Amino acid sequence: MRASEILLKTQKEASKAESLNQQLLVRGGFVDQLSSGIFTFLPLGLRVVRKIENIIREEINAIGGVEILMPALHPKENWTTTSRWNVPEMFKTKGVSNKEYGLGWTHEEIVTPLARKFISSYKDLPLYIYQIQTKFRNEPRAKSGLLRLREFSMKDLYSFHENETDLNRYYEKVKTAYDKIFSCCGIGAETILTFASGGAFSKYSHEFQTITQAGEDTIYVCDSCKVAINKEIAGPKPKCPQCGSLKLKQEKAIEVGNIFKLGERFSKPFGLEFNDAKGKKNLVQMGCYGIGPTRVFGAITEVHHDKSGILWPKEVAPFGVYLIVLDGKEREAEKIYQELEKAGVSVLLDDREESAGSKFADADLIGIPKRMVVSAKTLAKRSVELKDRETGQMKFVKISDMLKEIKS
Amino acid sequence: MRASEILLKTQKEASKAESLNQQLLVRGGFVDQLSSGIFTFLPLGLRVVRKIENIIREEINAIGGVEILMPALHPKENWTTTSRWNVPEMFKTKGVSNKEYGLGWTHEEIVTPLARKFISSYKDLPLYIYQIQTKFRNEPRAKSGLLRLREFSMKDLYSFHENETDLNRYYEKVKTAYDKIFSCCGIGAETILTFASGGAFSKYSHEFQTITQAGEDTIYVCDSCKVAINKEIAGPKPKCPQCGSLKLKQEKAIEVGNIFKLGERFSKPFGLEFNDAKGKKNLVQMGCYGIGPTRVFGAITEVHHDKSGILWPKEVAPFGVYLIVLDGKEREAEKIYQELEKAGVSVLLDDREESAGSKFADADLIGIPKRMVVSAKTLAKRSVELKDRETGQMKFVKISDMLKEIKS
Repeated sequence: MRASEILLKTQKEASKAESLNQQLLVRGGFVDQLSSGIFTFLPLGLRVVRKIENIIREEINAIGGVEILMPALHPKENWTTTSRWNVPEMFKTKGVSNKEYGLGWTHEEIVTPLARKFISSYKDLPLYIYQIQTKFRNEPRAKSGLLRLREFSMKDLYSFHENETDLNRYYEKVKTAYDKIFSCCGIGAETILTFASGGAFSKYSHEFQTITQAGEDTIYVCDSCKVAINKEIAGPKPKCPQCGSLKLKQEKAIEVGNIFKLGERFSKPFGLEFNDAKGKKNLVQMGCYGIGPTRVFGAITEVHHDKSGILWPKEVAPFGVYLIVLDGKEREAEKIYQELEKAGVSVLLDDREESAGSKFADADLIGIPKRMVVSAKTLAKRSVELKDRETGQMKFVKISDMLKEIKS
Repeated sequence: MRASEILLKTQKEASKAESLNQQLLVRGGFVDQLSSGIFTFLPLGLRVVRKIENIIREEINAIGGVEILMPALHPKENWTTTSRWNVPEMFKTKGVSNKEYGLGWTHEEIVTPLARKFISSYKDLPLYIYQIQTKFRNEPRAKSGLLRLREFSMKDLYSFHENETDLNRYYEKVKTAYDKIFSCCGIGAETILTFASGGAFSKYSHEFQTITQAGEDTIYVCDSCKVAINKEIAGPKPKCPQCGSLKLKQEKAIEVGNIFKLGERFSKPFGLEFNDAKGKKNLVQMGCYGIGPTRVFGAITEVHHDKSGILWPKEVAPFGVYLIVLDGKEREAEKIYQELEKAGVSVLLDDREESAGSKFADADLIGIPKRMVVSAKTLAKRSVELKDRETGQMKFVKISDMLKEIKS
């Protein structure tokens, strides 16, 4: 795509009062803030979020997830059934005849009665239903840029089982899928399986916490197990919940995902039962599993940046190549652009009337993995100049070798 | 995909009180009603909506549309600026510190101040920005199934121009794009360009009205021009707004799209100006263009069905082939399934433990264009049985010729 097609307009400065991810994402033209905790996703940002969502979708499909789309507008009755109508997270609204609705910040209250329509026998189990959908949350302090929003994208998966054993089996499977997702998003090394409060049904739930100074959570990471425990449940003398070691390192972290055994917490109030092989009625055992793509977007920015801008991991980068034209070599650049696109390399062609210096600065700020320059100097050598955004390494590459080099 | 992967569970009956599209879509397992005007999209329905959205996306991209994603939660201030805060369509909610928000039922109040950040000179114009996003509308009577929802998907495109001439030029371009979109969705023949109320800036706006008994609008269609005029502005003696003819046919119709010249209605209150070539400040001229993918989904159902079920046009069908296995020929069917999928034909494999009769009935109800049966009888002839859903024509096709036949 061309700069003109993606509203490319960067800013030199951003409010220093804002979190780092917000500063970088606003300056780079990925997002625009409408109000505290409420953002518009501009073309660059939307491309990144869609890539994250597709990574998630692929892995959840691979573990049997069935994708649906539930509404955001929830009748009050669904929430009074579970006594969660009056939680502070809920935005409420009224329709005609004063009918009350809540805006969904999670969907147990919707998916459980829905599942009743598909589950009657043990033969209908297990069942895994998910969606990638916009959620609303009445955040008291919507700060931290994309990390804590009032309106955000969420992948929420719900699983339905005959018994705890089967729930436990799937729960472990989701853990593995989550590891793959965060690795693919480029934050695998920084993202730690963290033991957290489990609620009534289970001793622990698990969070996926990405270590970064911007994190609002505090976790204690076990040196040998590479798992952590959330400060909220760690007590005064934190020890590793896996090996019992006291050698833990305190870190700030962002919760990018969580998995939770719900047991009968929701199947009971909604009467979600199944007939077992002997014809006896039992309550369905449930689990729920969340990842916020927009939060992951913010977390990646917090983890991968330097003083000049963002460093997008390849799999989530909005484009593969940032192509800069200098010295009026538009015609030659266009040919290269077409060749790359044809070969399946996504290219952002910076065809703006800007100085070379500001194009270079924007390339660094936006952080696409490869920067390519076409200029009189490079063309004299039948080459392009290629810069790796992360290492800063620059080299001339013959146009004839360009594709091989980019794809390597 | 397999039946088990898409929550395939049909219903023999649906409430006769409901509109036809709702009856068919609920019975076929495309959607599930949560509350009046609020639906969950089940896997089959989600596939259709995504296909409609992608058809729209492709055509809007082709006329220069830049895709973004604006939020649904709008600060009150944006709407008081245009004096539209107190319209009945608006769902309102309050956050912390009693901050008031409206839920977006349209986005002029958001996109206009956003455009200010990208437009300062005539060189920044024209600009075309769109999104495909979830909208909320406090409908007094949410009936008619998918045709009138309280929460729905919407493609809204906004155009920004130097002058009226350029706005008019683009407006005509959008008309052509819309014709392509509705044709591709299989309702081209039934969808009529209809003159409607224009507001303060323009004599007319234009609606795209799909003729069907389920429609809530009344239009008068000119026999020779194939355009129509909405009853709302037609007066007691309707005449064709194009040729003046009085030979008009009254029809019931659904508004599936609309295009509207906004002029300075929104650029003025938000101060959206540009410097022309002489350095003089002018107000930007705007247009807006909507299509509701979920409403198109309902409209297609109203137009394309028979007494047994839906007849999906090929481009929006959830799958290309509905594959039924009989006589325990799962292994053979699996091979055929794999072969079709590998060749890029999307297949719904009905591997449920149901009678042949109920599988046939479901195939008709769900309305995938081609039904394929693999049974002892067909295999004896090294064939499959292929039925065209629309014509009802059935024939045996050699397995070796199957792909050629399907793709023809």
